[in-house]
Amino acid sequence: MTEGLLRQKTAIIGCGLIGDSWAALMTAHGHDVAAWDPSPTALADFEKRVEKARQQVWQLMPTGRPDTGRLTLTDELETALVGATWVQENAPEKLELKQDLYAQIEAAVGDEVVIASSTSSLTWSELTVGMKRPQRLITAHPFNPPHLMPLVEIYARDEDIRARSVTFYAGMDRQPVVLKRDAVGHIANRLASALWREAVNIVAEDIADVSAVDAALVHGPGLRWSVVGAHMAYHLGGGVGGMEAYLKHLGPSQERRWFALGSPKLTPEVCAKLVAGVAEEAAGRSVDTLAGERDAALIRILKVNP
Amino acid sequence: MTEGLLRQKTAIIGCGLIGDSWAALMTAHGHDVAAWDPSPTALADFEKRVEKARQQVWQLMPTGRPDTGRLTLTDELETALVGATWVQENAPEKLELKQDLYAQIEAAVGDEVVIASSTSSLTWSELTVGMKRPQRLITAHPFNPPHLMPLVEIYARDEDIRARSVTFYAGMDRQPVVLKRDAVGHIANRLASALWREAVNIVAEDIADVSAVDAALVHGPGLRWSVVGAHMAYHLGGGVGGMEAYLKHLGPSQERRWFALGSPKLTPEVCAKLVAGVAEEAAGRSVDTLAGERDAALIRILKVNP
Repeated sequence: MTEGLLRQKTAIIGCGLIGDSWAALMTAHGHDVAAWDPSPTALADFEKRVEKARQQVWQLMPTGRPDTGRLTLTDELETALVGATWVQENAPEKLELKQDLYAQIEAAVGDEVVIASSTSSLTWSELTVGMKRPQRLITAHPFNPPHLMPLVEIYARDEDIRARSVTFYAGMDRQPVVLKRDAVGHIANRLASALWREAVNIVAEDIADVSAVDAALVHGPGLRWSVVGAHMAYHLGGGVGGMEAYLKHLGPSQERRWFALGSPKLTPEVCAKLVAGVAEEAAGRSVDTLAGERDAALIRILKVNP
Repeated sequence: MTEGLLRQKTAIIGCGLIGDSWAALMTAHGHDVAAWDPSPTALADFEKRVEKARQQVWQLMPTGRPDTGRLTLTDELETALVGATWVQENAPEKLELKQDLYAQIEAAVGDEVVIASSTSSLTWSELTVGMKRPQRLITAHPFNPPHLMPLVEIYARDEDIRARSVTFYAGMDRQPVVLKRDAVGHIANRLASALWREAVNIVAEDIADVSAVDAALVHGPGLRWSVVGAHMAYHLGGGVGGMEAYLKHLGPSQERRWFALGSPKLTPEVCAKLVAGVAEEAAGRSVDTLAGERDAALIRILKVNP
């Protein structure tokens, strides 16, 4: 039996949106979770939030659902770490704060325990400064909402730990993707940021409205990218000759197009257009309602294309 | 009854991949199609290719399927245009060739007939040079494969023709998106190009392999963008404060991230990495097999999220 399928005792460090999601996913897959957060606000509705997310995870597990893991909650870090076999850290994106936490965690857990950071914007090289055993830290970045989105981006220096982490996240129906180098924004947020820059440019240049840009993405490239990646899409666009034919015939025109893309600035005017544009697109729906619609649509897709 | 639901007689000008798709979609929705192409190669298997695509369209029309439109085929342009009420042009992306075709089409059809260009890379302003009635030309850019992908990007100068074109494409279960200005690459290919630039950069900089980049996109942002657009995603990322809160707190870090994105060149070395990378990802599957897998996955999604 592999580690991913063994029952782990996971410590969830930080109970915001990401911590909630991990707790839901891990307990739904049978792991015991001890969650820690110093803030009474974060702890107040934690179990209710986890339960709501877990209901969504269960919709994607029609058969073979293991016994639900135990969920405990504490505002004392050491208590959460007792007996932990895996640590998932989801603290605020402040480098010193995370480094300080790692020092406390290293002092409390055994050498074999992996500390996985959910960081979206900090790198392994920054995070590990000052650690006793830097190799035990990995970045394992989920994509929001993490209990539904399959992607987990992994960067691990140690080969064995890398393999263990792939097994662990894959065992919870995640799609682990391994990076060769640590990079700001990993893969997904770099891609998202590059796309959004042009999405902002199109609005700033008055080529199309916010809602038109979003509709074009959802019904066009977004839909296709949920099925084939960007590289593979150009491979298919090259016909029988594939990527090689594509690059030969259309590489130069892509380079010209790259050159013609915009470099917008988030000026007050552009920000005002974006805010007004999404308000029009939201058409009175609250962020909560919109997130609920998003989740329902994601679940429908994941049921047919797991 | 609206025009979109009326039976049109459409002339399909150019029977490549895009012409096939339009013919399948239009006849499946009850429009009569007269297709033209000067090349015997393009004409040879045309009906077979259309039939194959139409079978896929039908999978998305479980109920209310109208009588299939009549499909005729000719290598004489004037024959295809007799009685045409809508012209969909899908000739090669060569400006002079298209302009020459428009002159011939204008000489053969009535003033009220719309000429819709499927062009991906040319603009309305370029295409209409020399036309007698430039307002009758619109760009109506589908997304590959057009008989499955819902997006049609529309740019039309005339308000009435714009409304007619939205009705026409929406009547075939398309999602028409209207541009305010004509721009190279419309919306979708600008976004795709911006994203691919960074996808190439990640491979060029050895941050991750081709297959890892594609997997991250498919299981992360691609999946999410098939449900919510890029602007709306950041609105939801802003919590209850929405886009305004997002821009206030994370706008500056996005601008810094934009600055840090790559500007790769398609050097022989980078091209070789891309070609080898997709070959590894394809794992022996032909472009045809991969396209078939893509289509099947798209159909599964469109059935649950139409």
